[in-house]
Amino acid sequence: MAPEISERAQKVQASPIRKLVPIAEAAREKGRKVIHLNIGQPDIPTPDRMLDAIRRFDEKVLAYGHSAGLAEYRRALVRYYARHGIDVDSENILVTIGGSEAILFAFLATGSVGDEVIVPEPYYTNYDGFASMAGIRIVPLTTRAEDGFHLPAMEQIESRITDRTVGILFSNPGNPTGVIYTREEMEMLKSIALQRDLFLMSDEVYREFAYDGDTPTSVLHLDGIEPHAIMLDSVSKRYSACGARVGCLVSRNQSLIASLMKYAQARLCPATVEQTAAAAAIDTPDSYIDGVIAEYQRRRDICHEGVMEIPGAVCLKPKGAFYLVAKLPIDDGDEFARWMLESFHVDNETVMVAPAAGFYGTPGMGRDEVRLAYVLEEKTLRRAMRILRKGVEVYNQERGGREPTQEKTAMK
Amino acid sequence: MAPEISERAQKVQASPIRKLVPIAEAAREKGRKVIHLNIGQPDIPTPDRMLDAIRRFDEKVLAYGHSAGLAEYRRALVRYYARHGIDVDSENILVTIGGSEAILFAFLATGSVGDEVIVPEPYYTNYDGFASMAGIRIVPLTTRAEDGFHLPAMEQIESRITDRTVGILFSNPGNPTGVIYTREEMEMLKSIALQRDLFLMSDEVYREFAYDGDTPTSVLHLDGIEPHAIMLDSVSKRYSACGARVGCLVSRNQSLIASLMKYAQARLCPATVEQTAAAAAIDTPDSYIDGVIAEYQRRRDICHEGVMEIPGAVCLKPKGAFYLVAKLPIDDGDEFARWMLESFHVDNETVMVAPAAGFYGTPGMGRDEVRLAYVLEEKTLRRAMRILRKGVEVYNQERGGREPTQEKTAMK
Repeated sequence: MAPEISERAQKVQASPIRKLVPIAEAAREKGRKVIHLNIGQPDIPTPDRMLDAIRRFDEKVLAYGHSAGLAEYRRALVRYYARHGIDVDSENILVTIGGSEAILFAFLATGSVGDEVIVPEPYYTNYDGFASMAGIRIVPLTTRAEDGFHLPAMEQIESRITDRTVGILFSNPGNPTGVIYTREEMEMLKSIALQRDLFLMSDEVYREFAYDGDTPTSVLHLDGIEPHAIMLDSVSKRYSACGARVGCLVSRNQSLIASLMKYAQARLCPATVEQTAAAAAIDTPDSYIDGVIAEYQRRRDICHEGVMEIPGAVCLKPKGAFYLVAKLPIDDGDEFARWMLESFHVDNETVMVAPAAGFYGTPGMGRDEVRLAYVLEEKTLRRAMRILRKGVEVYNQERGGREPTQEKTAMK
Repeated sequence: MAPEISERAQKVQASPIRKLVPIAEAAREKGRKVIHLNIGQPDIPTPDRMLDAIRRFDEKVLAYGHSAGLAEYRRALVRYYARHGIDVDSENILVTIGGSEAILFAFLATGSVGDEVIVPEPYYTNYDGFASMAGIRIVPLTTRAEDGFHLPAMEQIESRITDRTVGILFSNPGNPTGVIYTREEMEMLKSIALQRDLFLMSDEVYREFAYDGDTPTSVLHLDGIEPHAIMLDSVSKRYSACGARVGCLVSRNQSLIASLMKYAQARLCPATVEQTAAAAAIDTPDSYIDGVIAEYQRRRDICHEGVMEIPGAVCLKPKGAFYLVAKLPIDDGDEFARWMLESFHVDNETVMVAPAAGFYGTPGMGRDEVRLAYVLEEKTLRRAMRILRKGVEVYNQERGGREPTQEKTAMK
């Protein structure tokens, strides 16, 4: 006899990409080269000053740091945010164990078990895991490829609000869609938050990843909603330091920060060495991030153009992050992704994509969509896009020549 | 208007020691030296090989690691546990972000919201924070200074079981008491777990800190309860590396590990650099840990003897960890701790203790007890114990000459 595992732990959804991992491994074992468009691990080198700070760590005891984060790092963050027009104090900042813990903390502080948070879909799937931990129900708000995944009208958003709704969570720039909300969209969210007394939780880990000169509006740029605004952040993407696990939660709502400090104290502190490194990274020269943005903008163009060459594909050119969601002339992204790994190759190479259905909370949505991460250097990315286009063609031929949909292929 | 912070975040108890921190700061501002017997930050240097591994980190990209932990580190842990007579595979190990996350994961996997976990009190107060996050109710099982904080009889433990009970969580060696459960006590817990189909969650972060030749029985040393047994661990104390935030959860219940992997994937991974360092630490020569144990055993003796010189104090000599809980001839440990900081000194030095009431889940328990951490070098520790003894004496004189209780002072 074995005691029963909790219902929540049994029911929480596994990463939607994970079930494809053994299939990719099997492909590799057959000697096939798999190009990964499915994951968001950047290949950009971590800034030297960050790695140097790790190598220079010279304490004799690797001791606990402050539960709110090292004072030195919080002060550095104040400078960083000031450069982005965000005026906050150290006291507004709680350093977290990656952006991940910032999400969990946001859920814990804003809702009780059974409360609801509205999240535009498709959304970062790991929100589901933290919602399960915190007992929060995510209420998806559908956005569409045809609209470039911008927000629907105010009435549609308000129609999702119930008496259990405590807030709205979104990522901006958006994972998985690459959308950057306009100032007007942010002002609309602000109006809703004020009128309905909701928290606005803005996941801004892709802040720098904005193309064509766009600048995302932070939730902390908005005036008059100080107690409502919670910003979630991370060094993972900005400094190509995903393994550092250093993030933060920023809010001018000091009661919220004070409440969360109790949870922060329970888990003691984020890792000391990486916080020191993150502090050093703050003064990374602009040339580093400018170079990164220029590089990603080129990749974004290659990826988007590659999608647009697939007859029937729908994808507005995304403005930010390093993903896009493309609607493809396929029935089932899950089956297609599997087929690409098991049955298709060009010169012994194939491509792994992330079926987008897993990024939706509404069952049945996104079945003809895939998420592509453009975190590969140009040459490989171009090749990957050609393989993907060919893959869609052959896949449909094998399935009886399904015609591309009549939707307009390039909308921008 | 501001949206309301969740009830759980408002209600979760702050660290019971925390409210004394500003008082200690005020004492220091008056120029007083405060000796800290209240905290568990070891002063022992972190092993060189661990710090060297940090300094040798030579990846170009600080990338995500595996969600279950780096394969290299999990293999090293298998070797480490084998040395302690614990036979496990990599697959049984989930590397966590400190022992802290292992506690949260154990709660998430074993219980649903409203379920109960029995915990012998006094207990590590941060269990409360994780119970709040997971919506678990901790049901305290009182143990007594007079019994050296060993477990009560089986019937008493069973009397706390309800239809919501999912498991029993304990630390062994124990924080804050220093108790090491005997083999018989562990077998009793096993019987209960088997008969009542409960999980046994054993927090073994102080494994090495066992004195007088004692060897703690791990929950994974027990036969026939493989699906029930969950072991929680951390490198924090073992290698004096509290700031590394590397722990693990170990269980032969593979369904449990598989369920938890989904949560582990949501939070991506523990910090990469520190896992590399923890892997290097596994082969720290025995001389390091032998030296640490010898050092702590001397400190334990000094601390315990110091307590025994206080007329009316009750404290069986603890066998492990680096804390003890002493019953003192005082009315209120909280008031006493505050008074020591505000109103008492010997040659301008005073001592900060942790009132033990905060380590109890049952209201009113432990009011005449304090926890002392013996993480200071001998000379300072001796001085601290003299100051504490004098403090108790003067405190009682000021309060009208309260007599020491008639209880036997030294029971061992």
